[in-house]
Amino acid sequence: MKIVAVIMAGGKGERFWPRSRQNMPKQFLCLTDDGTSMIQHTVKRLESLVNIDDVFIVTNKDYKELVKEQLQELPEENILLEPKAKNTAPCIGLAAVHIRKKYNDAIMLVLPSDHLIKYNEMYIDTLKDAIQVAKEDQNLVTIGITPTYPETGYGYINFGARKETGNNIRAYNVNKFVEKPNLELAKEYLASGKYLWNSGMFVWKSSTILNNFEELLPDIYKGIANIENAIGTEQYEQVTEIEFSKLKGESIDYGIMERANSIYTLPGNFGWDDVGSWNALERVNKTNENGNVVQGNVITIQSKNSIIQADSKLIATVGVENLIIVDTEDALLICDKENAQDIKKIIENLKICNRIEYL
Amino acid sequence: MKIVAVIMAGGKGERFWPRSRQNMPKQFLCLTDDGTSMIQHTVKRLESLVNIDDVFIVTNKDYKELVKEQLQELPEENILLEPKAKNTAPCIGLAAVHIRKKYNDAIMLVLPSDHLIKYNEMYIDTLKDAIQVAKEDQNLVTIGITPTYPETGYGYINFGARKETGNNIRAYNVNKFVEKPNLELAKEYLASGKYLWNSGMFVWKSSTILNNFEELLPDIYKGIANIENAIGTEQYEQVTEIEFSKLKGESIDYGIMERANSIYTLPGNFGWDDVGSWNALERVNKTNENGNVVQGNVITIQSKNSIIQADSKLIATVGVENLIIVDTEDALLICDKENAQDIKKIIENLKICNRIEYL
Repeated sequence: MKIVAVIMAGGKGERFWPRSRQNMPKQFLCLTDDGTSMIQHTVKRLESLVNIDDVFIVTNKDYKELVKEQLQELPEENILLEPKAKNTAPCIGLAAVHIRKKYNDAIMLVLPSDHLIKYNEMYIDTLKDAIQVAKEDQNLVTIGITPTYPETGYGYINFGARKETGNNIRAYNVNKFVEKPNLELAKEYLASGKYLWNSGMFVWKSSTILNNFEELLPDIYKGIANIENAIGTEQYEQVTEIEFSKLKGESIDYGIMERANSIYTLPGNFGWDDVGSWNALERVNKTNENGNVVQGNVITIQSKNSIIQADSKLIATVGVENLIIVDTEDALLICDKENAQDIKKIIENLKICNRIEYL
Repeated sequence: MKIVAVIMAGGKGERFWPRSRQNMPKQFLCLTDDGTSMIQHTVKRLESLVNIDDVFIVTNKDYKELVKEQLQELPEENILLEPKAKNTAPCIGLAAVHIRKKYNDAIMLVLPSDHLIKYNEMYIDTLKDAIQVAKEDQNLVTIGITPTYPETGYGYINFGARKETGNNIRAYNVNKFVEKPNLELAKEYLASGKYLWNSGMFVWKSSTILNNFEELLPDIYKGIANIENAIGTEQYEQVTEIEFSKLKGESIDYGIMERANSIYTLPGNFGWDDVGSWNALERVNKTNENGNVVQGNVITIQSKNSIIQADSKLIATVGVENLIIVDTEDALLICDKENAQDIKKIIENLKICNRIEYL
């Protein structure tokens, strides 16, 4: 069965301000030191498994040019545009009907566009296992990440018995999806050995997920079925616009995964990192002998454990520690690493003051 | 007797990098929030005592245009150019012969160009007292600053008995000038009540200082006397160049003040600040409710006790404390306040790497 990748690239991440902006969200940034953007990494790491012609990017029209620029080998018709952000269910549904129209049925690898993976071979092996499971019956597969610490910023997957597969694939029945826990609960989850992080990576047949849409989210199904009928016609854009404007926003987790049957999870151990804030840069990049992650024209004197991204001008630091310093053409961030999550307060402040040029 | 001011403005201060540069030393920077440069402050605070036509600026040719630009009412012929920096003695000697040539004799107020004074009225009153003392006999007067803490970065003046003046002027005999002490010694000086900071401000008649040059620094005297003879001739520039190239560098403190007779000091209590590093900005400028001294386009989130100077771009800080942040067109400094004296290490680094564009 044909294997296609659906990469969700409509996000507007604000946590990498001032480099991420409304017109330049995280997935298009180069946050590693290899000059490769997050979305380029995402596509590249699939190359042994999925042909570029079978990669679909779901995004919105503001980012179409960025996708074309960064993924020059991608067929333009594989860029699917959401007229409006309606959360993950309509996004995935849109991709599913395109895939049904084109291939009748196919295995869909549904993947975020802005995560990093360190051990690519293990990642591909895990996806291959997931594909095996997803091919059977009406199975929905989600890749869980084996937690390494009690993170409170992710949702968790509570899994049960191992699926009898007749082979060595380690798939587990999903009991339930749970919301971001508090620290105490997260510690309990870890201690139990029965929880994985919800990474937002899914594998299923397009037919399976569409059956689930039809049953569990019939309004959305009706909308995306109308869109499917318009594919290849002159009315496509208009129909998509109308149907999306009518849809209510819904996440795939809440709308389907928490309510469907035959859900399995495969534990992923492939060095996954959601690169959730500037602090991630010292996990995904090399640090120098002083613990600094430095990019560009930088002089550090008695400075350590800092993340420093220069733009065109020289940055000189003296005696600083644990700072995030990010220079861009029109804005400069200096943030204590402990306060990386408060960068959103800058965005709020800028919005309140209507300083849209910096957003 | 005519009163003239001699303002020494040839310094190349590196402690305000990246705003101070070889072509923009400290005396020409605006470090207060009133848009007035250090040298402009220096001239302006004398206006009730000295006519602008009687103000002389001693500098070098690299800074001539800056002086003209910043002191537009100053007669151009009052800008005296040292062909080469030879420390303070030749600088003052050059001014003294110009003054002798023009006025025969006059009271010279010799002043640094890059200090700030908070209580101007008290400053002028102190200068007036100093003038009274300097008018008599062959007196050399230096303004000392009453120390407020055991600073190790200044020289000190050890004073003795009060001069009998027949009026209320508090002038004291100078026993000796002492070099920058270590902390222990500085504490002893303070405890003794017999030491003042050496501020580098002097008052004397041009005839008095020239007599001292003749007696104590005869080589320099010979040089400046040759220059004096060339004033007003076409050979002036050439003669000055030749004589300066022959002079050995000498400070007025070491060359004259430490060896002359009839030296008096007047304690100054007028809110003197030598603005010796970026840290001084919180002494000489207003701090906001978070203890920050902020200039320009700046957003601070949970940030305190920092000195932040924006240039053209937005600076946003989150969770930072005790930092000096200075942005300029081509270089950005981020320095812990504790390490302000290590800014010179950046300069050293830039010199070693021959990155002269940043010097």
